[in-house]
Formats: sequence, structure tokens, C-alpha cells
Amino acid sequence: MSSGDGPLFGRVALIGIGLIGSSLARVMRRDGLAGHIAVSSRTRATLDKATELGLADSVTLDSRTVVDGADLVVVCSPLGTYADIAADMGPALKEGCIVTDVGSVKQAVVRDLAPHMPDGVHLVPGHPVAGTEHSGPEAGFAELFDGRWCILTPPPGTDPDAVERMVELWRRAGMMVDVMDAAHHDMVLAITSHLPHLIAYTIVGTATDLSDHLKAEVFKYSAGGFRDFTRIAASDPVMWRDVFLNNKDAVLEMLGRFSEDLTALQRAIRWGEGDKLYDLFTRTREIRRGVVEAKQA
Amino acid sequence: MSSGDGPLFGRVALIGIGLIGSSLARVMRRDGLAGHIAVSSRTRATLDKATELGLADSVTLDSRTVVDGADLVVVCSPLGTYADIAADMGPALKEGCIVTDVGSVKQAVVRDLAPHMPDGVHLVPGHPVAGTEHSGPEAGFAELFDGRWCILTPPPGTDPDAVERMVELWRRAGMMVDVMDAAHHDMVLAITSHLPHLIAYTIVGTATDLSDHLKAEVFKYSAGGFRDFTRIAASDPVMWRDVFLNNKDAVLEMLGRFSEDLTALQRAIRWGEGDKLYDLFTRTREIRRGVVEAKQA
Repeated sequence: MSSGDGPLFGRVALIGIGLIGSSLARVMRRDGLAGHIAVSSRTRATLDKATELGLADSVTLDSRTVVDGADLVVVCSPLGTYADIAADMGPALKEGCIVTDVGSVKQAVVRDLAPHMPDGVHLVPGHPVAGTEHSGPEAGFAELFDGRWCILTPPPGTDPDAVERMVELWRRAGMMVDVMDAAHHDMVLAITSHLPHLIAYTIVGTATDLSDHLKAEVFKYSAGGFRDFTRIAASDPVMWRDVFLNNKDAVLEMLGRFSEDLTALQRAIRWGEGDKLYDLFTRTREIRRGVVEAKQA
Repeated sequence: MSSGDGPLFGRVALIGIGLIGSSLARVMRRDGLAGHIAVSSRTRATLDKATELGLADSVTLDSRTVVDGADLVVVCSPLGTYADIAADMGPALKEGCIVTDVGSVKQAVVRDLAPHMPDGVHLVPGHPVAGTEHSGPEAGFAELFDGRWCILTPPPGTDPDAVERMVELWRRAGMMVDVMDAAHHDMVLAITSHLPHLIAYTIVGTATDLSDHLKAEVFKYSAGGFRDFTRIAASDPVMWRDVFLNNKDAVLEMLGRFSEDLTALQRAIRWGEGDKLYDLFTRTREIRRGVVEAKQA
């Protein structure tokens, strides 16, 4: 199936077609990976846009009929919609079908999707670790995944062939693929993604609460560091609300560590302990080298 | 003096030639703004590099002789060095000379420099709000300042002509220039620059303290948001230590507000209050629009 001859999947259903879903659709179009792309969304406007962009062979508002005859179903909607979608599409899934997703939390996916999967359907949750602060089908682009990592978290006992087909799909999208336990994924992403977003949202909110006069200046002088946070804090509000609600334990654990560390720094500033500041700032500079060396900069 | 004919300053002394100092030297070279550029630094290696890059007409390790005959002195070294430099160069400053700097905190500059300024010398502290995570003379480039804001904080009673000459210099470097009170500057920059850096340093430090196994994964999956923080947290350790030590009150004030807001979000996550998260995340998205509209994105 990985020979490159013919589509990788006959019929693909995308449930949701925002930044990630539409980027994946573009990859499938570019490389001819899908015989037919069926798309469902909650709004007609999104479906119209997907059609206009040439990303869908068929569209529907119905998350049950969209999976009819599908060999691959990719859930690309916010995590909070998964349970309803699963209950809806479950009875219509074809035997042998692979069901996957692109959500940023993985234990919750198993919790919400697995109970509705009929026998003979393969659940292979996935998380392409890539994104921008933009959302919607027009925000996607095929190169979004290039050189980034995708994490698959198949539950124990998942058919290895189904996992291999998902590895192949994401490789075709330009990604490197790791397979790991869902709980481990959720802990790692809590520190590398969820906590950074939470902090960016917080500091931008703190600035928003300043007086209007100060606020205008916050925009003007944002090149001093703030603008990077505003970019992250412009990410999709629904998607991120659902991330925090669905990865509560790991986020609270990492947030606890962060708060302790921040309080220690606050104390060092108050008492003028320059050596402590210098030591930390030197250590963190090394970390940047690690990111650059991992080619993720 | 702003006619564009001939150099804006006859003899310029740059005390320190890192990212900002060397970028300013490049602007002066490009546009012929200085008749002679004298450079001092604490290390011979930096002076050799500045000479090699063609940024200096004369070099010295001595921060007194470097100002001999200078019409403009620009202090471009970490804030913690200012008091010693001022005491050193003060007696050698020429009457009518303008003394400025590029430091990220401004009240401390008046505190450290003003007592050593002889009569007839004009102190016009400045802060070009621009930078990268790189440091040293080889990291500079003339376009660093393009389209960014420079803030001048002349003490009350400063000669308006001296202020106007500094406005002209930074405009030639491509900057927009604001003049404001030093205390106000320090409060605005605490939220737009100092707090973002402190938080980035903290979260990257928190990640560093994870087990080695997790740490490797932090690099791999940094595209989920973390990498933006690692870039900020790679900034010069000495410069930033000195910023926090010299803008303690404003940083602690903004940090207090941030911590309250973060605790409120933590509580919302723990209690599953999705509406609170959604409301904040929607507000912060608006702020990004403000930054984009202010052309600082």
C-alpha cells in the first residue's frame, strides 16, 4: 500500500475541515492519496468554502452519512465534539475502516471514541504536532506538516497494519512519526504545547486588563517580546478550551511546577539575587540549542 | 543638522558593541552618520571582531579615553555596567556632548549616569525596542530597527536640541520615536518585554528540570508552542539579569497581576469552567489584531 501507485485510501471522510483538516486534504489532493474526499462540518459556510477550495468531492452537514463507505475517517474538529460525533457515526462505520483524529490530547480521544467503535473498526488516534494561529479551511496549506512530528497513540491490541497505514499517511505529508502511550503523550504535550498556550493567553489577558492608554502602548512596543505571545494567544478559542478541559491533570501538574519556579524567580528578583537569574538564563540558552539541533526551530 | 549633508555627529563613541551597538554602527556606516566611530569593550576579542567587521575607526579597552572628543556617546553595554562606566568617563566628557544609551530600563539609567554628567553635557537616555535572541557584534544588522519604536526619556529640563538630534539619529535608523517619562517607560516595558522574557525563561527552565528522557521529547515536539519560548529564553543572560535587577518594582507589579490571572485560569481548568476559558481566549485573539494593525507583528 505504500508503493506510491494509486491512492492510499479509496474513500476518506474528514469530519471538520479547519486548519489541520484542510491542510491534510491539500496533501491528499497534491499526492493523490484519496480516491474520494467526503467532508462534513457543522456549518454550511465551511462546507461551501471547502468546495470552493476544491478540497471536497462531497459535503454534508451530517456526521453519520459522511462516513458511509469510508476506508479512513479523520476527526478534525475540537475535542469537545468527539463524543457526539462518535455516537453519531459509530453505527455507520464500515468494517475494516480506520478511525483517526488530529486532536492535541489523546487519552480523552480513547475515552470518547472507543466505546462507539464497532468490532472490526480500527481506532488509531493521532496528533500531528504542527499548526499556526490561524483557523478555518482557507488557513490550511499542504506544507504545514513538513519536517514536524506526528504522534500516534493506538490503544494496546490495535491492528499493526492499521497503525502502519497511518504512519504511511503522515510520512507522505512530510512528517516524522512516533508511536507512544496516550498518557505519555498527554504529559509531554502539556509542557511543550498546552502550558505555553495557557501562559500566552494569560499574559495577553493581563495586558488587556490594563487601562486603555497603556493598552495602545502595549501594541506599539510589542516587538520587545510580547508579540510572540500575542501570536500564540490568537489560536482558536474553542480548540484550546477543549484542550484544557480534556487534559486537566497533566496541565495542572505542569502548571504547578511552573508556578513554583516562577515564584522562586520572583523571590530572586525581589532580593536582588542576580546569580540565580544568571544561572537560569544561561541554562535556558542551552535548551534553545537543543531545539535548533532537533531542527524544530 | 538633519539636512542629510555630512555626518550627523563628528565623533561618536560606542561603549559596548553587541547586538544593538553593532547594528547602530552599521546604520552609521551605511548612511555616513558619524565622522569617526570610536569603540570600547571589556574584551579584546570583541574589539578585534568590531575592527574586522569594519565597524570601528578606533578601538580601546578604556571606557574613559574612548569618549575623548566625542560629540555623541552611546552606552550599549548591560545595565549593571553603567555606574562604573559613568564614573569612569564622566570627567573626560566634552562640553556639549550628548550621552545616550540603549538599555531596556530607563529610571535606573538616570540614577546611574546623571550624577556623573558634568555641566554642559546632555543626557538623553534611549531605548530602541528591537532585538533578536542573538548577541555579539557579528549578530547585528542595519535593518534591525526598521519600523520599530524607539523611546527617549530625557530628564525634565534637558536641552530640546539634544533631544531633537537623538530623534533624528533613530529616525535615520528607520525607527519611529516617542518621548516619555522614564517611570512610564519602565511600567510599559515591564508588561510588553520584561514579563514575557521572565515567563519564557521560567517555562524553559521548568522543562529543563524534567527527566532526561522527557527533555529529548521536549525538543522534538517543540513546534506545539514551546519553541517560541525557547527563542525568547535564548536572549543574552547578562543583559536580562540586569534588566530584572534594575526594573524590580515594575516587574514585580506586573508579575503579581499575571500570577493572579494565572491562578484564576488554573481554577477554571480544575473546575471545568469552559466558558471562562473561552471568553479569555476570544479576548486575546482581538489583541493580536491590535498588534497586527500597529504593524508590529
